Amino acid sequence: MADSKPLFSLDGDPLAAEALLRDVFGIVVDEVIRKGTSASEKVCEWKEPEELKQLLDLELRSQGEASEQILARCREVIHYSVKTCHPHFFNQLFSGLDPHALAGRIVTESLNTSQYTYEIAPVFVLMEEEVLKKLRALVGWSSGDGVFCPGGSISNMYAVNLARYQRYPDCKQRGLRALPPLALFTSKECHYSIKKGAAFLGLGTNSVRVVKTDERGKMVPEDLERQISLAEAEGAVPFLVSATSGTTVLGAFDPLNAIADVCQRLGLWLHVDAAWGGSVLLSQTHRHLLDGIQRADSVAWNPHKLLTAGLQCSALLLRDTSNLLRRCHGSQASYLFQQDKFYDVALDTGDKVVQCGRRVDCLKLWLMWKAQGGQGLERRVDQAFALAWYLVEELKKREGFELVMEPAGEAGEPGLQ
Amino acid sequence: MADSKPLFSLDGDPLAAEALLRDVFGIVVDEVIRKGTSASEKVCEWKEPEELKQLLDLELRSQGEASEQILARCREVIHYSVKTCHPHFFNQLFSGLDPHALAGRIVTESLNTSQYTYEIAPVFVLMEEEVLKKLRALVGWSSGDGVFCPGGSISNMYAVNLARYQRYPDCKQRGLRALPPLALFTSKECHYSIKKGAAFLGLGTNSVRVVKTDERGKMVPEDLERQISLAEAEGAVPFLVSATSGTTVLGAFDPLNAIADVCQRLGLWLHVDAAWGGSVLLSQTHRHLLDGIQRADSVAWNPHKLLTAGLQCSALLLRDTSNLLRRCHGSQASYLFQQDKFYDVALDTGDKVVQCGRRVDCLKLWLMWKAQGGQGLERRVDQAFALAWYLVEELKKREGFELVMEPAGEAGEPGLQ
Repeated sequence: MADSKPLFSLDGDPLAAEALLRDVFGIVVDEVIRKGTSASEKVCEWKEPEELKQLLDLELRSQGEASEQILARCREVIHYSVKTCHPHFFNQLFSGLDPHALAGRIVTESLNTSQYTYEIAPVFVLMEEEVLKKLRALVGWSSGDGVFCPGGSISNMYAVNLARYQRYPDCKQRGLRALPPLALFTSKECHYSIKKGAAFLGLGTNSVRVVKTDERGKMVPEDLERQISLAEAEGAVPFLVSATSGTTVLGAFDPLNAIADVCQRLGLWLHVDAAWGGSVLLSQTHRHLLDGIQRADSVAWNPHKLLTAGLQCSALLLRDTSNLLRRCHGSQASYLFQQDKFYDVALDTGDKVVQCGRRVDCLKLWLMWKAQGGQGLERRVDQAFALAWYLVEELKKREGFELVMEPAGEAGEPGLQ
Repeated sequence: MADSKPLFSLDGDPLAAEALLRDVFGIVVDEVIRKGTSASEKVCEWKEPEELKQLLDLELRSQGEASEQILARCREVIHYSVKTCHPHFFNQLFSGLDPHALAGRIVTESLNTSQYTYEIAPVFVLMEEEVLKKLRALVGWSSGDGVFCPGGSISNMYAVNLARYQRYPDCKQRGLRALPPLALFTSKECHYSIKKGAAFLGLGTNSVRVVKTDERGKMVPEDLERQISLAEAEGAVPFLVSATSGTTVLGAFDPLNAIADVCQRLGLWLHVDAAWGGSVLLSQTHRHLLDGIQRADSVAWNPHKLLTAGLQCSALLLRDTSNLLRRCHGSQASYLFQQDKFYDVALDTGDKVVQCGRRVDCLKLWLMWKAQGGQGLERRVDQAFALAWYLVEELKKREGFELVMEPAGEAGEPGLQ
């Protein structure tokens, strides 16, 4: 065995590998970057499932295929996929294509490392901390903790798990049966992950008490207090309120200060699910929608939505400075988190999470931020609000349309960027 | 607003975006594909944390930077990162670079979609099902269910959550307090995610009963029976055994048939954590190490490890055909999973998972499989075993080395591929 041969060689032929990757990249440029973002092309070449199955020849066989065939497959995969970068793509909460974020994603994929220790991800351990620090600063915290999670649902679960652990550290060893019945509170318009999370974490969906919303879809703080009293009267221990900054369907921003008042008075953990709306903190014009967020204990914020960093980019931010994240989730696996390394083992952030291997999710956001600057990102957020208001104004002029609800924020001039 | 302008334009300048991406791709080819895989280069340009922080200038500012600066940053990020594709990279359970898998990752990132519904991911919904079907066939199942998860730890959690839900469907609504105390069983050499998962799911780490291993690191089935009796005597209800096929530290394969006998007799859910060793099923020579896996209820298998598909690629496979996954995790969010679509809504697989947005993790594996064929992947697995034995034989010839434990599997001829 020659020393120079990698364990899994590039097919034993680095030049062929390089040529293949160049060809695939060329296809990406033609089919995604150019055609995918052109309004004169389709968002999707739609096919019914049975027909698409036939077209794609998905079956995996014993025999491999030649490069030409593989390239044709890449073209087909792109051809029949939805172009989320297309100007007419309007689906759930994300769209567009930021070239710097995509550049960051390509570099991430080529390096293919895991985020658990400094020795295997030196750049990304430091970078993640810097990005989290910046997001925390926008929340209004000069210190704290945090981690990137695989999506907002899991970020929300982390918050719930941390809140119950902080109140009942016993829970980690002895489980929920050792605890009194718990209750958490969120609004009728909250994201469905709160209930999914409660089930997954063993609390059960019944532990989620639903608070009324006003005509705009915002949580009613008076009803929150009422629900808390009700839960207590039924023998449950309220421990967490999950407010939503930017609800999924109506785009409503819960009144955080009023909710924080209740939480503070009653000693409840305040989580803000700002998966969608967190990025509004970048806008001087609109960030008042999240006034009071600095009083939260935890915030879930997904730059893969409004900021178009690319799926997945979901930060859980914590005000805590007591190492709660590591105490709650840590297991000190000795094969991975040795304590006698030649650097500060606090940098081995892998024990903060419930995952082991964990993707690098910070680079795409970091690179995009470096390129656009906070100012560039701010313009994007303002532009998104401006476009929502532009649509309202345009439709008002037309017959057959009636405004059911005004968008959040204020109107602005679209087309700033 | 011209119709042709995307919401977030490519900086308003598609050509500049394309040029940037071409340059970044060129850097990836030079620095990762060429230098990163060359044994005459370093695995990592190691720097102490404080020095690296200075070198990288990580701070995120208001002002954006010019393209040249961004390209320089990409080069630096790669320069100071660990090259997991390097022939001398020996860290945790993965290494190497498969060009087809990387091609699949680049296409995935460029399309940037979420796996929740057929309408937003038509190709990938069908492809994920086909890949899962193939993995299930290798396990020995002609039917079943499954899903890609963000890593093996979460796949293992899914298995535990499904097992408790199957036995106590009430748990979803009413939580663990409505259930008797539960006990699950795994070996001393199991992955630490089993305990982390038990804490996260609200069971508590004490619910994990540790079974003895033999001198080779394999679970001792007689001790499993003893631990089960002990748990029952203490008033707990045993509900799941997590066997390990390829333990993290010793690479041991638990005796699945003997463990399945116990599970079958006592009516326990058998989960196999084959995150590392699942890929051995591709090898006719070595797959006997997992004999009995077809008797499991669930299997966690990470092609991002032994098969080098790229992080993250982690399948949870289920023998169940009763829609358990969807019943356990589903919440029927009406804004996303409308029931009146023009296609079979069973294809909206997003309600099978506890995430909402979910990355596409199937394409990289599918494309690599198409290119290499099952035969090519089999050669890789055989090669990995052969190399382990080769190392043993070489070191036996040298003074100062003593063989503490033989590797699993049989010796073979290294350098087959």
